[in-house]
Amino acid sequence: MAGVTKYHMIRDHLLDRLDSMAAGEQLPTERDLAQELGVSRMTLRRATDELVAGGLVRRRPGSGVFAVGPKLDTALAATSFTQDMLSRGLRPGSRMLAFERRAAGARIGRRLEVSPSADVVHATRLRLADEEPMSIETLYVPESVVPGLTVDDLEDASYYELLRLRYGVVIARGVQTIQPTVTDEEESRELGVPLHSPALLFERTSWAADGTVVEFVRSIYRGDRYQIRTELTVPRTAAPVQETTG
Amino acid sequence: MAGVTKYHMIRDHLLDRLDSMAAGEQLPTERDLAQELGVSRMTLRRATDELVAGGLVRRRPGSGVFAVGPKLDTALAATSFTQDMLSRGLRPGSRMLAFERRAAGARIGRRLEVSPSADVVHATRLRLADEEPMSIETLYVPESVVPGLTVDDLEDASYYELLRLRYGVVIARGVQTIQPTVTDEEESRELGVPLHSPALLFERTSWAADGTVVEFVRSIYRGDRYQIRTELTVPRTAAPVQETTG
Repeated sequence: MAGVTKYHMIRDHLLDRLDSMAAGEQLPTERDLAQELGVSRMTLRRATDELVAGGLVRRRPGSGVFAVGPKLDTALAATSFTQDMLSRGLRPGSRMLAFERRAAGARIGRRLEVSPSADVVHATRLRLADEEPMSIETLYVPESVVPGLTVDDLEDASYYELLRLRYGVVIARGVQTIQPTVTDEEESRELGVPLHSPALLFERTSWAADGTVVEFVRSIYRGDRYQIRTELTVPRTAAPVQETTG
Repeated sequence: MAGVTKYHMIRDHLLDRLDSMAAGEQLPTERDLAQELGVSRMTLRRATDELVAGGLVRRRPGSGVFAVGPKLDTALAATSFTQDMLSRGLRPGSRMLAFERRAAGARIGRRLEVSPSADVVHATRLRLADEEPMSIETLYVPESVVPGLTVDDLEDASYYELLRLRYGVVIARGVQTIQPTVTDEEESRELGVPLHSPALLFERTSWAADGTVVEFVRSIYRGDRYQIRTELTVPRTAAPVQETTG
């Protein structure tokens, strides 16, 4: 029965402690904790392993288990990454990891509604807050939409500004999906998190007023430092408790 | 460089195939795929392992790798689970996994703004779509808010209806966070997914008009069958491309 086992009691106890711990603060040793809770070290280890897998704590082999600290809240589609970080007193940053032109291929071609052989600009950026990596964002744009776009263009300005000012394209609408995932080897290395850490995958497609797809964006956000926060107003219809959980 | 390695090429190729595959359909053998793509089986295995870890495919030892099929889209705070499933022609269902009264404890006490020793109702339900488990939802409510609440009450009606009709409590507002996580052993068993599968964790706190916390809800949604989908309107301010990615 979920929520009633000794294992969950231990997990809740550990989460209690973590709530009041700062990032990098160390949990008591497995031995001390098991003794304090009156459980076997194996049971405690199992609960701790789940917290590690969930990205709620970090295990440093040989040295122990450490809190990862509170996450950055973000309102969905609220302020820009830049403004968001600034409002927290964090310095936003960005580092270009890759910029190239490639054939779209079947998958990206479908997303951009162009032929698989059409030229597509791929731009991958690491997003930073106070030099700490927060997300990896890859932008896919048909070359035909942004002829002559260079890596420097994106270093200096927002893509939407470029679209509007240089190419005279205005975004009319977009569709975004959010999925849970885990970081692969390269994402883990760039983001500085353990392999297979929980992460949020944002995929967004945007259309110009004339119906042209002008971007497909794929962003991976660290799950240990980032979460979505939404204020909920209660609808007038029935069963709003379900309406807010989808 | 993210997005440019042979590993990512293979991943994209596999994702292309999966896009056109139905749930349960099998990928070609590692041997055939490696040959077709002209890569080593080890390189292919590495890419496949990432898809498995990301919950994008299922590996059945001895039999091969299978597509998990398209995910159910849900608009954030759109329709109820029940209405949502019905609108897809799926039969919504619910199974009570646990119902009990316990002391809040420090963590839940903080969430409910009650003393750690206050009695709290814990109700854990498995949510189903056509008998397929989609999420595990645990509701925490102070006993003082719902004196005499029974398991049968929740079997028959929505919690919000009970609050309004029997207890005369109306929800005024709520705050919800969404985080990526992975399923633990018990969640994996109940949801029928491999251990440490990517999942979305929804945590919601709701307040009555008088400021009383009337619920804390913790929901785990399968990442392989469920995603959040949002229509984006473009704000008038600058850099909307960032505004929509948080």
